[in-house]
Amino acid sequence: MINIEKLRALIAREIEKMNFNSRHPQELYMPVDYIMSMGGKRLRPVLCLMACRLFTDDIFDCLRPAVAIELFHNFTLLHDDIMDKADMRRGRPTVHKKWGENTAIISGDVMVVLSFDLISSAKPDILPRLLSVFNRTAVEVCEGQQMDMNFETISRVDENSYLEMIKLKTSVLIAASMEIGAIAAGASTKDSGLMYESGLNLGLAFQLQDDVMDLYGDQDKFGKKPGGDILMNKKTILLIKAFETADEKTANKITDIMEKEQDPETKISEIKNIFDQLDVKEAADRMTNDYFQEALRKLNGASCNPERKKEFGEFIETVMNRKS
Amino acid sequence: MINIEKLRALIAREIEKMNFNSRHPQELYMPVDYIMSMGGKRLRPVLCLMACRLFTDDIFDCLRPAVAIELFHNFTLLHDDIMDKADMRRGRPTVHKKWGENTAIISGDVMVVLSFDLISSAKPDILPRLLSVFNRTAVEVCEGQQMDMNFETISRVDENSYLEMIKLKTSVLIAASMEIGAIAAGASTKDSGLMYESGLNLGLAFQLQDDVMDLYGDQDKFGKKPGGDILMNKKTILLIKAFETADEKTANKITDIMEKEQDPETKISEIKNIFDQLDVKEAADRMTNDYFQEALRKLNGASCNPERKKEFGEFIETVMNRKS
Repeated sequence: MINIEKLRALIAREIEKMNFNSRHPQELYMPVDYIMSMGGKRLRPVLCLMACRLFTDDIFDCLRPAVAIELFHNFTLLHDDIMDKADMRRGRPTVHKKWGENTAIISGDVMVVLSFDLISSAKPDILPRLLSVFNRTAVEVCEGQQMDMNFETISRVDENSYLEMIKLKTSVLIAASMEIGAIAAGASTKDSGLMYESGLNLGLAFQLQDDVMDLYGDQDKFGKKPGGDILMNKKTILLIKAFETADEKTANKITDIMEKEQDPETKISEIKNIFDQLDVKEAADRMTNDYFQEALRKLNGASCNPERKKEFGEFIETVMNRKS
Repeated sequence: MINIEKLRALIAREIEKMNFNSRHPQELYMPVDYIMSMGGKRLRPVLCLMACRLFTDDIFDCLRPAVAIELFHNFTLLHDDIMDKADMRRGRPTVHKKWGENTAIISGDVMVVLSFDLISSAKPDILPRLLSVFNRTAVEVCEGQQMDMNFETISRVDENSYLEMIKLKTSVLIAASMEIGAIAAGASTKDSGLMYESGLNLGLAFQLQDDVMDLYGDQDKFGKKPGGDILMNKKTILLIKAFETADEKTANKITDIMEKEQDPETKISEIKNIFDQLDVKEAADRMTNDYFQEALRKLNGASCNPERKKEFGEFIETVMNRKS
């Protein structure tokens, strides 16, 4: 089994090479250095390198695209935090809290530009394919973010719209990470397409599980209080499944609790009780598992090293169990 | 002489082809459609097409890169307007006034992405050169915007820093427009480099003239009251030249007027009197003309159709005289 920490170290070194801490004007690049040095799981670049390793031992050409994806992902976090008025990220003040909104806007902007620049530095023979995936994905992520913002203004969202939103906002970038890794490895269009499909399903599974864990996760393990999504009236798969299965009376009761001003603990426990009665956790878990199994099926369809496939499968299994 | 309106019509048609008004989610693309339909002089894409015409009659391959540049330029306007808290643009409410800041941020983001996507659609043989100019320029524009924001927090800026700022914030995109036009036409690296140099000087001349016109321009012709920059204590070439030539007493007087709360008309006329005594308009005009002449010299150094060169020279002359 490959040591994931080694991949993370390679990614960290590649990020360091960008020298954000010595670029000018400092006011522009300090926030970029700050958010890029915060670490985090580096899930997308790791998936990118892991996908590359399915088809080749030489992951060198994949490092810059992997960092491009991480830069783009962190740009979305930076701008999303402004839009969500979030004060904290990974236990530290967000960029706009620390340096103000204007700097957060323009620092995010330069991160998008730099992510395109990194992708553009790929070898000419794979450049058009990389650009095609990366550009389309970047557009879709913006569309997903806008859809998410739209959902805040409506009280009920149906399952299909919700799945479309999380697909665009989250899954396509996971999918692109895997496809780009495969392209960088010189994989065939068929295989890189399978990687994309696998990533799309994996991304959906990740997000659905996130929704479930926000309420049912172990506080000690996740470091945050359960029920945050309920307090913010966020549309999650739990809420959507609840509305789907509830009779009219119960649905109205959910709406009442959502709209009522009340003690946070009470709100969470009242909603959770209804969720439990309706077995929505089980329904969401089944759905998550279905997407995860489909991700594995697509992965297994690719023509590549079976040992590495196994390794990849184990890695995403670990991510799903949140042991990493 | 080519009909510039015809070029503008070609650009408008190419923008229309992007179908911003029918893309989803509408909330994301309506603002893009709004700002891209406002028109304006389309200076950058026109310069791009004109530069292309210096080397070839076939400007077809240049249309998408030209629109990419216009999209990127309008993205900068959109985000700058948020940062400057500007209410109006081209006589209409700014995007963030009309749809809110969050939508303005994310709509601007998708515009950058789409501009990269348009550039990426170029033919493989010129793609790496186009990406190289476009990406570097995009980074520099962000750097220039941050430098401009930094200048707001300091009371005096020296001439070199100011020129560096306007070079990055304004000139490099004019320069890139011309270089990209030349590259799309298949021009040699030497010639496309000369186009870039010409554009860099032209951009400086444009910005310096803008600074002068803000105070000395004809209100009927420019549609705005003279002296706006003075009221905002903006660092302009006039203010910088004034500080450069003023004795200590006069320099202190300028600083006093800048810091004092007073009637806008009085503030403008007091500063203008000092500028007139110090002949700063003449100094700025000389500098503007020097850059403009250098732009023409670089243009004339290129190996291309002499008739078209003349036409190009006449066009930028018209732009400088603001008759267009």
